[in-house]
Amino acid sequence: MTDSNNATNQQWGGRFSEPVDAFVARFTASVEFDQRMAKQDIQGSVAHATMLAKVGVLTDEERDQIIQGLTEIREEIEKGEFNWSIELEDVHMNIEARLTQKIGITGKKLHTGRSRNDQVATDIRLYMRDEIDFLLEEITRLQQGILSLAAKNTDTIMPGFTHLQTAQPVTFGHHLMAWYEMAQRDYERLLDCRKRVNILPLGAAALAGTTYPIDRNMTAELLGFERPTYNSLDSVSDRDFAIEFTAVAATTMMHLSRWAEEMVMWASAQFNFIFLPDRFCTGSSIMPQKKNPDVPELVRGKTGRVYGHLMSLLTLMKSQCLAYNKDNQEDKEPLFDTVDTLKGSLRAFADMIPAIEARNEYMYEAARRGFSTATDLADYLVRKGVAFRDAHEIVGKAVGFGVEQSKDLSEMTLEELKGFGDIIENDVFDVLTLEGSVAARDHVGGTAPAQVKLAIERAEKELSAR
Amino acid sequence: MTDSNNATNQQWGGRFSEPVDAFVARFTASVEFDQRMAKQDIQGSVAHATMLAKVGVLTDEERDQIIQGLTEIREEIEKGEFNWSIELEDVHMNIEARLTQKIGITGKKLHTGRSRNDQVATDIRLYMRDEIDFLLEEITRLQQGILSLAAKNTDTIMPGFTHLQTAQPVTFGHHLMAWYEMAQRDYERLLDCRKRVNILPLGAAALAGTTYPIDRNMTAELLGFERPTYNSLDSVSDRDFAIEFTAVAATTMMHLSRWAEEMVMWASAQFNFIFLPDRFCTGSSIMPQKKNPDVPELVRGKTGRVYGHLMSLLTLMKSQCLAYNKDNQEDKEPLFDTVDTLKGSLRAFADMIPAIEARNEYMYEAARRGFSTATDLADYLVRKGVAFRDAHEIVGKAVGFGVEQSKDLSEMTLEELKGFGDIIENDVFDVLTLEGSVAARDHVGGTAPAQVKLAIERAEKELSAR
Amino acid sequence: MTDSNNATNQQWGGRFSEPVDAFVARFTASVEFDQRMAKQDIQGSVAHATMLAKVGVLTDEERDQIIQGLTEIREEIEKGEFNWSIELEDVHMNIEARLTQKIGITGKKLHTGRSRNDQVATDIRLYMRDEIDFLLEEITRLQQGILSLAAKNTDTIMPGFTHLQTAQPVTFGHHLMAWYEMAQRDYERLLDCRKRVNILPLGAAALAGTTYPIDRNMTAELLGFERPTYNSLDSVSDRDFAIEFTAVAATTMMHLSRWAEEMVMWASAQFNFIFLPDRFCTGSSIMPQKKNPDVPELVRGKTGRVYGHLMSLLTLMKSQCLAYNKDNQEDKEPLFDTVDTLKGSLRAFADMIPAIEARNEYMYEAARRGFSTATDLADYLVRKGVAFRDAHEIVGKAVGFGVEQSKDLSEMTLEELKGFGDIIENDVFDVLTLEGSVAARDHVGGTAPAQVKLAIERAEKELSAR
Amino acid sequence: MTDSNNATNQQWGGRFSEPVDAFVARFTASVEFDQRMAKQDIQGSVAHATMLAKVGVLTDEERDQIIQGLTEIREEIEKGEFNWSIELEDVHMNIEARLTQKIGITGKKLHTGRSRNDQVATDIRLYMRDEIDFLLEEITRLQQGILSLAAKNTDTIMPGFTHLQTAQPVTFGHHLMAWYEMAQRDYERLLDCRKRVNILPLGAAALAGTTYPIDRNMTAELLGFERPTYNSLDSVSDRDFAIEFTAVAATTMMHLSRWAEEMVMWASAQFNFIFLPDRFCTGSSIMPQKKNPDVPELVRGKTGRVYGHLMSLLTLMKSQCLAYNKDNQEDKEPLFDTVDTLKGSLRAFADMIPAIEARNEYMYEAARRGFSTATDLADYLVRKGVAFRDAHEIVGKAVGFGVEQSKDLSEMTLEELKGFGDIIENDVFDVLTLEGSVAARDHVGGTAPAQVKLAIERAEKELSAR
Repeated sequence: MTDSNNATNQQWGGRFSEPVDAFVARFTASVEFDQRMAKQDIQGSVAHATMLAKVGVLTDEERDQIIQGLTEIREEIEKGEFNWSIELEDVHMNIEARLTQKIGITGKKLHTGRSRNDQVATDIRLYMRDEIDFLLEEITRLQQGILSLAAKNTDTIMPGFTHLQTAQPVTFGHHLMAWYEMAQRDYERLLDCRKRVNILPLGAAALAGTTYPIDRNMTAELLGFERPTYNSLDSVSDRDFAIEFTAVAATTMMHLSRWAEEMVMWASAQFNFIFLPDRFCTGSSIMPQKKNPDVPELVRGKTGRVYGHLMSLLTLMKSQCLAYNKDNQEDKEPLFDTVDTLKGSLRAFADMIPAIEARNEYMYEAARRGFSTATDLADYLVRKGVAFRDAHEIVGKAVGFGVEQSKDLSEMTLEELKGFGDIIENDVFDVLTLEGSVAARDHVGGTAPAQVKLAIERAEKELSAR
Repeated sequence: MTDSNNATNQQWGGRFSEPVDAFVARFTASVEFDQRMAKQDIQGSVAHATMLAKVGVLTDEERDQIIQGLTEIREEIEKGEFNWSIELEDVHMNIEARLTQKIGITGKKLHTGRSRNDQVATDIRLYMRDEIDFLLEEITRLQQGILSLAAKNTDTIMPGFTHLQTAQPVTFGHHLMAWYEMAQRDYERLLDCRKRVNILPLGAAALAGTTYPIDRNMTAELLGFERPTYNSLDSVSDRDFAIEFTAVAATTMMHLSRWAEEMVMWASAQFNFIFLPDRFCTGSSIMPQKKNPDVPELVRGKTGRVYGHLMSLLTLMKSQCLAYNKDNQEDKEPLFDTVDTLKGSLRAFADMIPAIEARNEYMYEAARRGFSTATDLADYLVRKGVAFRDAHEIVGKAVGFGVEQSKDLSEMTLEELKGFGDIIENDVFDVLTLEGSVAARDHVGGTAPAQVKLAIERAEKELSAR
Repeated sequence: MTDSNNATNQQWGGRFSEPVDAFVARFTASVEFDQRMAKQDIQGSVAHATMLAKVGVLTDEERDQIIQGLTEIREEIEKGEFNWSIELEDVHMNIEARLTQKIGITGKKLHTGRSRNDQVATDIRLYMRDEIDFLLEEITRLQQGILSLAAKNTDTIMPGFTHLQTAQPVTFGHHLMAWYEMAQRDYERLLDCRKRVNILPLGAAALAGTTYPIDRNMTAELLGFERPTYNSLDSVSDRDFAIEFTAVAATTMMHLSRWAEEMVMWASAQFNFIFLPDRFCTGSSIMPQKKNPDVPELVRGKTGRVYGHLMSLLTLMKSQCLAYNKDNQEDKEPLFDTVDTLKGSLRAFADMIPAIEARNEYMYEAARRGFSTATDLADYLVRKGVAFRDAHEIVGKAVGFGVEQSKDLSEMTLEELKGFGDIIENDVFDVLTLEGSVAARDHVGGTAPAQVKLAIERAEKELSAR
Repeated sequence: MTDSNNATNQQWGGRFSEPVDAFVARFTASVEFDQRMAKQDIQGSVAHATMLAKVGVLTDEERDQIIQGLTEIREEIEKGEFNWSIELEDVHMNIEARLTQKIGITGKKLHTGRSRNDQVATDIRLYMRDEIDFLLEEITRLQQGILSLAAKNTDTIMPGFTHLQTAQPVTFGHHLMAWYEMAQRDYERLLDCRKRVNILPLGAAALAGTTYPIDRNMTAELLGFERPTYNSLDSVSDRDFAIEFTAVAATTMMHLSRWAEEMVMWASAQFNFIFLPDRFCTGSSIMPQKKNPDVPELVRGKTGRVYGHLMSLLTLMKSQCLAYNKDNQEDKEPLFDTVDTLKGSLRAFADMIPAIEARNEYMYEAARRGFSTATDLADYLVRKGVAFRDAHEIVGKAVGFGVEQSKDLSEMTLEELKGFGDIIENDVFDVLTLEGSVAARDHVGGTAPAQVKLAIERAEKELSAR
């Protein structure tokens, strides 16, 4: 084969620095990225060896030798002393080769009753479970950060927007509790996803199961899995959990992108609603006055990355025949990068959000302009017996007058107001203030400070029950 | 404004058949697609009116008039007699206008304490819940169809493939049970999604809640929702459930695309593993001999559609400020088409799969060739004391010899086999048969007919417990 | 088969309103959406018949009968009198059946030397070419609209943003010319795409060509195609042009989404940079004071739709074996909806943009605040001999002082400025004004009004040369 | 700030190994991936310095010092001796800091009249241009490989498939020329993309241009760009070229996935159409007989990766306000990985395809079965005067008889054939052979060996003209 390679290289000129075989070896190897699962690979192998000894495929002595060898290898890896080799293709072969180097022929027995197909499926599930558990903690920390900022702002009035137009006054605490709810769903979806990750494929071997008398329930128990999978073909070909995780992550990133957008806008000179601590911002190489909200912008940008990985995994699995195909090696990088992106983004936001400072006076002033209590006037009229749609029309006229006169509703005289509806009395001014408007939305989910406080209490209980 | 429109039209020539305003009205209207939710819109309004009467915002008489009017409107719609108008923008305004036409000023009172923002969020959740419930039944029916075909084929031997190369013999029933497991996860994910759909946003009003003394718990109960949402801003801006549903649907379509690929391949002359009933196939306009597996091909093609809708919804929500923006009107068409596509595809497969006929003899013959029991020979050697990796090498040589001589392992003489390993005895032929190979993988998830039968039993219990 | 259908329906209950066969017929039929290509189907058939007569496969009389029949059918369709039938599957069979009904057995001869596989490929290319030509005109119209608004605002000063922080003053005309450039690339990409659309697949027949002595160059010429395709298998399986078109459309929609985002933000009370004419906005059902920028919001939302269709088509074609597969029927709906979305969005923006009014005073005031001329001060220092990086530091200190004192740079006294750098002289105030700052960026692509005027001139020439 | 960081870290526990600031610095830094553009960054700086000297902003001596310093830095980088620092954020600051370290204050002057915003836009375009030029060569090499295999197989008969059912006989050479045509479009699209890459953004500075008297035409010429960009805001915010490149790459990967699918299928025991050289395959860790087509499978899997990157970039740019935002830093990794994936996949296929061996006898035998000449019989009947649709029916009956009798059409007797149509004569057997069938499709794009040879000739001219 060397000859033909040489021929090939001559034929295509000196462009390449390596012969075809070396290129193919590198092109198809996965060890550069799957070594990240070394810890889980060893964890799975220890459980597998323990089970094999229990059912008599290995002697106790062989099992002990294997476990001892793997333990040493784990230490080598942790210390950065392990010599990863592309010739050995992947994390599994690298570790097994090292084991055999260490303990001789017994090392070769570890692979009895399994295949790389079920081994990698097990490793990736162990890895994902670890990462999901960490991410669940990070979401909790993020939610705590939101609560801490919301608790300081239960009475801070700001304009509530629809269509980015001032709609009705809300409190900043209430707005933040919307973020909390989004994060809460992310938490729940991740937890649901974890159920489907936490199942043991080991024992499926290449695709059909094995002729050795394995005890899959025992291995599952040793590794903390809920149960073994029920079908061997499905075990080695299933990557649903990767897709589900990435879809959950994509939704979480979407949420972060929405908050990022709001933070960037609020930090602009035009809104000026919040102060972002300097350490989450950077300056400009050309404009000395700039203070750029880099962290929210970057997180907003990273959303695309996770959306892309989701599309990548869905495309990967489309139309794939059972059972294992080499295509599946491509599941890891998108998944790993999704994990990294989500961890980084959650950490950044969990650090940053509680450090945000509201500029209350700007928020208040923005709410005061913009006729944000127009709905309150309409509701007032309805309570006085006017039909809602008619009240809507009356208020529309009053607002038109206000625009013309540059006067907010609360700044008009009773006479002016009465000009639009005779039914209006002096008590109208109670509902036209921002405080009155906000306080009046006093039901589950409403923006009244009392409700926001209750929502924070409920949320704190939720978190402390985890 | 008419004048400027005329001017515009003159300026840009006679290309357009309508003035700008009419174009904008049509461009921004949603009634052409959101009328699909008319039933749910009325259902939500009836509950809202009932609640409003309970808390004293409506009189009992007003409530009864409203409910009577809505009931009549529902009938008009069901009979196709309702006159939908683009000028009235959406399903909500169309129905409300008709109600007011019917019962006068009382009709206008129905909108008290709500907004189109929370109304549409409620309608879409009611609609999704209905569709999810139907889809759960369809997945069950699909699973029943798979079980029925699997039950006929617990002993039907076929080649198990990895890399589309014959790997080890499996049973067709076992292969089908892999499909069952995929569908099972689809069912579970859809059920998890339903939990997050089944929450009531009504009462959030435009974005901040309402000043009327509404009882959101009552409305939730009337509509069968688990609870009201906890934050009004989140209530009108949240479309997570649409994304989650579409992600679940995308994974289901991915599964169907994998089965479709297998069916198309199995129905080819080269594989010839299955017979697809004529009614799921079509002929060719030019090639009289063709019988094309149209249904699986089309379903495979429809996968892209749902992937696309998922990407569409994720993009839609990226970086959207709270609370409601007009962008969100774009959530409906991808969602509706996802529902339709999933329903059609599930129905087609649920009808077709139980009607598939296995061509047992071709499957068996394909398994017999291809050295599919090579792993069994290796395992045999290991049981005789050879290390797995060494056994692998011995078998590799035997296969090489077989390729050269065009002889399967089971066709070699004992002497020939002994040439590769002296330890081989006459009992080797027990493991070299397809039946022996398959039966030996006798553990949870293995392909042994006994295990497949157990798996079918477990599955039947699962389904009948629904 | 009726019996088995009945059985099926009994078995699965009365859920379905149609028997299996009818469902499959409807599920696999395309006539509901591909009838949109009727005009092109007839156009292609007329050319095919003309060519067949030329090469002697049809007599001149047969050709004339066919063309006459097709012409009548086109009229029936245009008048809405054509009776489309799902049983006849698609637009091709519907038209052919009607033709045979009209002119008898000669109608059947039209299909000689072609197949539905190359016929549909031809129809879709003819259709796309028509739509691309229209879209090219619409982009031109959009560019004209941008130019018209830019020409009014070559001297209108606004803050230029990076990171949504005031960076340097620019003119509104300059900002608009950035939009123009984006649209220009969209135009060029669409033109490049057209080249690859405008090639004739007819003659590929089912997949391998035909045994009739067809003249593909003649058909290509009759239909205005640049040339026939070079490979029959590729001709019926290629959908690159659909993907390329959708990718071009996705980029265009991305551009519109960026402008939409800016318009929505500029129309907010916080920015207040522009006035959007009422006819592109709507009100609120609950908040009488609202004026919502619906059109830009909706277009921004529609971006996801086209992204999704691109993903849909890419997924569709992934891993598809040659030549034609039923999957490909799924190419049409995403493509048609992309065309419709792009047409609607371009029209809306081409109508709206020239009607935007700049609120010059708000733009100017926003630029005046925010130390937007800080870079000019740095450049001033550099011209006086200070190294750029050092100048950057000096200005940073001046800005810090300004923030503290709530003073813009142009509002500081010479003494105050000299406190940061002794080298500063009275001429500094020339560069600290917005007008001076803007005028100084006077090179190709710079924001100086003189340059913007030149850019508009160049653009006008570009458009008038089309 | 150190204090508050400590506090933060104490508050959130000891989970993190670095303080908040260090995390943010790492999270927002790009040097780990953008150092890939170091060569282009230096190339751009050399041109910028040359231009600055020409227009008098730098002295000739300063220019020479800068160029000398940059040249040394390039060597340090090439030798791997450059010390990249995350504190210095990105490739630009790392190089500039090193330059200043080397040549003192003059190094700081290099940044005059530019900003990192236009600098990075320039670097990435230079980088993309280099990579596109390499990729164009690789596509050419791939096309040469296809031609070389096609030239050996102009007469090799195989079944042509539609719906993966045998349709009509084609030649393997013809099938390969379909691949050639796909690659040809990829080449053309990449060339079109290159036009839009090859434009100079430098001079846009941060967003508005610069007050220095720069000569952008000169810089463009020095760097081989076609022209400078026309708008500074657009220059720093435009990432169209990244999207266009990735869309082109996605289509190319889609093509490779289609060929991969065919290769995998053809290499299966069931098809057995081709022999893939061992060096593009791997074995199994558990099944000694396996030879897995790893390279095509992996390339098929990598398709998803590039689709994902396209979605990532489209999402990134959606709704981004002008001009530069930190989000844009996220453009690089998807783009770089797209380049790497495309290079690796093209190389693998360009190496592998010419090394494929056709198994002519299996292809021929597969074509012989399956009534692949049924269309020829229909065409024969039409030439004898039967209407096409009627001929279709006659042949349908003959095929039905053949299926029943297990006889191909060419194996039937004249009497048997006459039973279906009296018009059939002895000359029918000329068209029922595979060779006759193939040779009869003798027009541009047809499968006749003569046409395939012409197509190869045309292609060879195309390639040699590059």
